[in-house]
Amino acid sequence: MNLDYHNKELVRIALAEDIGSGDVTSLTLIPASMKGTAIIVAKQPLVVCGMLVAQYLCELLHPEIKLDWQINDGDYANSGDTIASLSGPYQPILALERTLLNFLQHLSAISSKSRRLSEMAKPHQVKILDTRKTTPGWRTLEKYAVRIGGCFNHRHGLFDQVLIKDTHVDAFPGTLTETVEITRQKNDSAIKIEIEVRNMDELAAALKGRPDIVMLDNMSPEQVKSAVKFVRSSELGKSVLIELSGGMNETNISPYFACGADAISVGELTHSIKAVDIGMYYQPEHTQ
Amino acid sequence: MNLDYHNKELVRIALAEDIGSGDVTSLTLIPASMKGTAIIVAKQPLVVCGMLVAQYLCELLHPEIKLDWQINDGDYANSGDTIASLSGPYQPILALERTLLNFLQHLSAISSKSRRLSEMAKPHQVKILDTRKTTPGWRTLEKYAVRIGGCFNHRHGLFDQVLIKDTHVDAFPGTLTETVEITRQKNDSAIKIEIEVRNMDELAAALKGRPDIVMLDNMSPEQVKSAVKFVRSSELGKSVLIELSGGMNETNISPYFACGADAISVGELTHSIKAVDIGMYYQPEHTQ
Amino acid sequence: MNLDYHNKELVRIALAEDIGSGDVTSLTLIPASMKGTAIIVAKQPLVVCGMLVAQYLCELLHPEIKLDWQINDGDYANSGDTIASLSGPYQPILALERTLLNFLQHLSAISSKSRRLSEMAKPHQVKILDTRKTTPGWRTLEKYAVRIGGCFNHRHGLFDQVLIKDTHVDAFPGTLTETVEITRQKNDSAIKIEIEVRNMDELAAALKGRPDIVMLDNMSPEQVKSAVKFVRSSELGKSVLIELSGGMNETNISPYFACGADAISVGELTHSIKAVDIGMYYQPEHTQ
Amino acid sequence: MNLDYHNKELVRIALAEDIGSGDVTSLTLIPASMKGTAIIVAKQPLVVCGMLVAQYLCELLHPEIKLDWQINDGDYANSGDTIASLSGPYQPILALERTLLNFLQHLSAISSKSRRLSEMAKPHQVKILDTRKTTPGWRTLEKYAVRIGGCFNHRHGLFDQVLIKDTHVDAFPGTLTETVEITRQKNDSAIKIEIEVRNMDELAAALKGRPDIVMLDNMSPEQVKSAVKFVRSSELGKSVLIELSGGMNETNISPYFACGADAISVGELTHSIKAVDIGMYYQPEHTQ
Amino acid sequence: MNLDYHNKELVRIALAEDIGSGDVTSLTLIPASMKGTAIIVAKQPLVVCGMLVAQYLCELLHPEIKLDWQINDGDYANSGDTIASLSGPYQPILALERTLLNFLQHLSAISSKSRRLSEMAKPHQVKILDTRKTTPGWRTLEKYAVRIGGCFNHRHGLFDQVLIKDTHVDAFPGTLTETVEITRQKNDSAIKIEIEVRNMDELAAALKGRPDIVMLDNMSPEQVKSAVKFVRSSELGKSVLIELSGGMNETNISPYFACGADAISVGELTHSIKAVDIGMYYQPEHTQ
Amino acid sequence: MNLDYHNKELVRIALAEDIGSGDVTSLTLIPASMKGTAIIVAKQPLVVCGMLVAQYLCELLHPEIKLDWQINDGDYANSGDTIASLSGPYQPILALERTLLNFLQHLSAISSKSRRLSEMAKPHQVKILDTRKTTPGWRTLEKYAVRIGGCFNHRHGLFDQVLIKDTHVDAFPGTLTETVEITRQKNDSAIKIEIEVRNMDELAAALKGRPDIVMLDNMSPEQVKSAVKFVRSSELGKSVLIELSGGMNETNISPYFACGADAISVGELTHSIKAVDIGMYYQPEHTQ
Repeated sequence: MNLDYHNKELVRIALAEDIGSGDVTSLTLIPASMKGTAIIVAKQPLVVCGMLVAQYLCELLHPEIKLDWQINDGDYANSGDTIASLSGPYQPILALERTLLNFLQHLSAISSKSRRLSEMAKPHQVKILDTRKTTPGWRTLEKYAVRIGGCFNHRHGLFDQVLIKDTHVDAFPGTLTETVEITRQKNDSAIKIEIEVRNMDELAAALKGRPDIVMLDNMSPEQVKSAVKFVRSSELGKSVLIELSGGMNETNISPYFACGADAISVGELTHSIKAVDIGMYYQPEHTQ
Repeated sequence: MNLDYHNKELVRIALAEDIGSGDVTSLTLIPASMKGTAIIVAKQPLVVCGMLVAQYLCELLHPEIKLDWQINDGDYANSGDTIASLSGPYQPILALERTLLNFLQHLSAISSKSRRLSEMAKPHQVKILDTRKTTPGWRTLEKYAVRIGGCFNHRHGLFDQVLIKDTHVDAFPGTLTETVEITRQKNDSAIKIEIEVRNMDELAAALKGRPDIVMLDNMSPEQVKSAVKFVRSSELGKSVLIELSGGMNETNISPYFACGADAISVGELTHSIKAVDIGMYYQPEHTQ
Repeated sequence: MNLDYHNKELVRIALAEDIGSGDVTSLTLIPASMKGTAIIVAKQPLVVCGMLVAQYLCELLHPEIKLDWQINDGDYANSGDTIASLSGPYQPILALERTLLNFLQHLSAISSKSRRLSEMAKPHQVKILDTRKTTPGWRTLEKYAVRIGGCFNHRHGLFDQVLIKDTHVDAFPGTLTETVEITRQKNDSAIKIEIEVRNMDELAAALKGRPDIVMLDNMSPEQVKSAVKFVRSSELGKSVLIELSGGMNETNISPYFACGADAISVGELTHSIKAVDIGMYYQPEHTQ
Repeated sequence: MNLDYHNKELVRIALAEDIGSGDVTSLTLIPASMKGTAIIVAKQPLVVCGMLVAQYLCELLHPEIKLDWQINDGDYANSGDTIASLSGPYQPILALERTLLNFLQHLSAISSKSRRLSEMAKPHQVKILDTRKTTPGWRTLEKYAVRIGGCFNHRHGLFDQVLIKDTHVDAFPGTLTETVEITRQKNDSAIKIEIEVRNMDELAAALKGRPDIVMLDNMSPEQVKSAVKFVRSSELGKSVLIELSGGMNETNISPYFACGADAISVGELTHSIKAVDIGMYYQPEHTQ
Repeated sequence: MNLDYHNKELVRIALAEDIGSGDVTSLTLIPASMKGTAIIVAKQPLVVCGMLVAQYLCELLHPEIKLDWQINDGDYANSGDTIASLSGPYQPILALERTLLNFLQHLSAISSKSRRLSEMAKPHQVKILDTRKTTPGWRTLEKYAVRIGGCFNHRHGLFDQVLIKDTHVDAFPGTLTETVEITRQKNDSAIKIEIEVRNMDELAAALKGRPDIVMLDNMSPEQVKSAVKFVRSSELGKSVLIELSGGMNETNISPYFACGADAISVGELTHSIKAVDIGMYYQPEHTQ
Repeated sequence: MNLDYHNKELVRIALAEDIGSGDVTSLTLIPASMKGTAIIVAKQPLVVCGMLVAQYLCELLHPEIKLDWQINDGDYANSGDTIASLSGPYQPILALERTLLNFLQHLSAISSKSRRLSEMAKPHQVKILDTRKTTPGWRTLEKYAVRIGGCFNHRHGLFDQVLIKDTHVDAFPGTLTETVEITRQKNDSAIKIEIEVRNMDELAAALKGRPDIVMLDNMSPEQVKSAVKFVRSSELGKSVLIELSGGMNETNISPYFACGADAISVGELTHSIKAVDIGMYYQPEHTQ
């Protein structure tokens, strides 16, 4: 991954809002010529995410800050492990602490949760997907953190996949089957067609329209099993991807793993994320 | 509050990342000429925050969307209350749902938590302050949500207040007293000088430098009481603001209210925020 | 379609580069208070495209320019038909002529070519697709013009679909089958997997990996027919989309329509486009 | 030439629209650590243009891509000649192919056409000029390509030269002579005054106003010769620049070279440009 | 004149740097619902300049601010005259005072000085020109203020006119005559060629190259008269524009008016400008 | 200090407006391969300011320009002293002259004036403050120049300090004392409360509200002495900062130094600044 146009703009805004015209504390107390170091340390077990952002922050703040990464994006860090070290001019190294930690703690929290869920799901060959419940401005960064944790991205936005929900069905003057058919005919070949269904009747009607993906919304594990059986027994359903959705989280997801679905989308991968604990420890270089 | 330069950029990025070149589902199924309405509904008790962002989102997406606000920023909404209603062209009203909710749920969650804490603190005339542990890119929006909830902002960034921490003291070759004195002399008259202290010795030394604010870090309520007594009994300490800090949250904060401090800073006002539940309900207008 | 973040930036740049600090001719000769009108006229048969850009240009240049659209995006205009009319302050209406025509002539040329090709293909139920051979900076505008003309978009960029080409196969240390399998396993559920093949052996190997789309590259109509027959006769190939590619244009494409493929991608939909002829005719209002 | 503010923005948009959140094919199949090379090869005779854009694209995408230019902007390349080579991390080198070629093929096509026309015109000491019929967003890049090909730029936009056309004359309440005089008096000393005339009467009237340039619009070679003779025989016309205009192209321009005009403006230098054929050939480095 | 791409960016930056996250004084003391008015008043005689900037500032800050202009750009205001009045929401009207005055006082100062100089020069039919000694970021605004004051713009930047100075001559391996000739041959037809000369030898050599403009640098009125006589007496010099330059200001310029030159460039038109005095007077609306 | 988000944007605009699509003079006369040097020389005694801007200009224009700084920001330069030298490709070194000087002359003029005033004030332990009368777009650069000269910054904008003026008092329905009290209660702890008073009654009322700073506006030295005596004699006034304001300049400020005030704000530190004289001298490298 590279930081894209909007990621870079987000990082620049983050730096502007925290540092603005300068860190009045360090500018007063720290000589501009003082060098120093800092280490970034995991204070709980976690999966690291955020190297690119950290690197870009350092570049923006001072070209002479050296950032050495010791644990890469996607690797585990135990409590106490040094993730990275910084050295160079001490004023800007002090100034970037809060912005850097705010990014790392949030992205690593997403990667860590994604890792836990992806490892729960792996034996069952079910993909765990994220959703569009992301922090506005952070979509691609958070979706990257999800992948780094071993989960998968659902569509990035409204532009790269069709997802037919009840609001669309209510507004469209045809059957569910026609809804799917018309979207397939009218859309580009790169676009997958997914439809959300809430019961077996909707599922049967949707399948006739030949979607790429059906989303079984808010069903119990038993209902899911029946639905999967129904899909797989039909000629048209053989290659259809089956996705589960609806209030899934680390606590309640397990019974769904062995129901035969291909993927489960989990809003809390990116939603209401509790930051992981990462700290920075500083050491100035006192010259003689 | 007005949306500033960076707030607007954040909203534009948020729209770009979700809608990009267009909502392929609605563009297929919903006629461009169809009108419709939507209501934004609280699904739990909360304090509303986000009018300006919502308004700007609508403007950016389609000039004919009409947004009527029924519960203003800072007002309570009960579960089931309609916060606002939208009407106009149905395609863009459908397209903005996720981005709008992602903003409202997060900002209203901060306002709601701030309201709970500010009401706990009010009888004791203690100000609850936020911190710089905010979502990168969202600093001024989140600090606005804090104020809307009745709490107060600590410094906005490194640029608008001195806060001397141990990292600065370690790097500065003088006594704690001198550290405060030199920052006062060297800084501009608009800049307040705050210093973090961890025990009575540091407090005594800091006070001699005549700071505007002392931050008592990670002390027990008993320790705080002693410290406050010490400060108030000295000539220099009469007008010094006393702030408490260190792992405060809704559960553990109460014993600190009556200790005589002026303010308590609470990281979780903006950190690791759990979104509140807000939904949107849609109604297309089927013409004859 | 709405103009997105980058479309608007492109229009602003276009205006800046042509008008810059002002139109020195009109500013000298035309009184600022003079009103006037202009009509935009097709000078050859064409399919109109560019309403949104034209509207945004007018808004940027002067809020009082009134733009009335008489033939909408996607409609035919015959030679001599008035597409739209402008009225308002005469200086800015004169100033936007060249930029407006440069946009309209190029986008309408793409829509017109797309219309011709989509109508040729319609009886055969083959979708005509564009490619990534677009004018840098114009991707979403040109892809919109393609859709307006009745053709379909291939992937928007490298981010929204896998397309495995020989360069990837050369670098990947596995069989063609494994190449497809691994991309399916590793990628998100919204991402379709397409693979380019140049002969029957590659096709057979690719199919085993279960791609969503196979691209038959540079084959004769006879070769295509054999390939389609092979794909459709296998269990795995029933729901695979078959795309043809390689130097297709309005002259040589016909023999491919009845070969059984689902889609044909045509670079010249957006590449080396010859602008259509559209003119503007002006009328100043001479007050008494 | 340096890339200016808007050129850089255009390149950033071009990269964003093609690569967005990442190249899903290469990210899956190519290890991040893999190195590789590519060569950019002319597949037809052409005049190279685009070094600066190519260099900036590489910088934006990955700082370790090394780009060696073997044929410089403005030099001829024969079919099969290597124009430049790239080496470094293989993922981004693959990712930039399409954007790089889209730029190079278009700019080099303009340079190539400009070279052909400038060489036709050289023996006659006539300057070939471009027009404002450029691709919106690309004005300065395309005008640079024109110069690289040996032709000259007409005014860059409406801001840097007066060009009085019939629309201005229709709106201005004076004689043609007064039109020219007033623009000369009112405009800045850096601004040249040009006026378009369609017959000898207009020419005579225009000349009396003492323009810097007269544009003879849509005249036959014979008419041009008469007009030139008329201009040169008058006292005022000695130092007036004579420009020809109106539907000129490579096929019909020759008879105009020896008519005594100083310059001929040719819209097709930048308008409806057919891209030249340039390819990229890739070689991954397989480590042991 | 319209505000261009960069003018608008400058205004946005100006607002961001002064108001940032909000005016803490007004937000505290003024109810959001309070309305009010303000008048902008000249406190010395001046020529008004800045309507467009003022209008854009109001739009950015609050859409309900109404700005009525009573004295237009370019008109005289006497001390005490009301230039414009504002009405609407009182908080933002208070907030924009300083930014608005900073713009108006500076631009009107330039217009006022330009007016004085242009009226001194008018009887002599000499154009007064500005220079490139402008405030970085303000070039087109300041050059607009110059024109509003009745003076003329020299080239806008390095891009729109050749000006050969001694630094170029030192680096170029030919005679002064050749220097002019080569620039005329190599440059576009819209580009005027100017050369700076310091004595009669240089003038004679320069003229042979047939420049459009000669700049007589740092000459006394007597020297200028001789130079003008020399130029006008030669065949080539009849239509050459003669510009004077070098430390001209309101005090020392008069003797140069009747020397026969066409134009005099004056750095102090935009350089080291002393702001004119303009004030704002406020009136809140106290509701019953 | 680092250049922040807006500073960089200002520099990019400055370069765009002066150089645009290229320096037509140097591009014609100077070979692209020519190297050369330039020195930046003080032509009057001054305090240097502008290193960061100069460095960023060079980076933007050409990566191979080497800029060696010989006199640092904040140091004195005598007339004739070389401040810095540049070497590298000669075309861009010539092109940046005017933009570089326009920045350096203005910022160094502010630093020089600030140095004179700060040295006058130093023996009296009075801080000289700037105001918000800065060049729009330049706020943080000019405030940096003030600090470099030894003076101090008043608030940066409306966002970082309360300053209650008569306009606020007129609109607020309470006593002066209540005005101060309410702003202290409602505002954040980082925000200092300042109030402007014009006589002893206002001062007495204001003091009772317990402001951090009182601004004595437009008082004579005698009035100031009385006011200071009054403030210091009250219990509440001991730690209040006393600031003087109103038409102060280098000529009239001296009598105020010994009046007992803590700070004096001086608009002319940044307002109507007369640029200092700095020149550049060039030397091309003629290869054999």
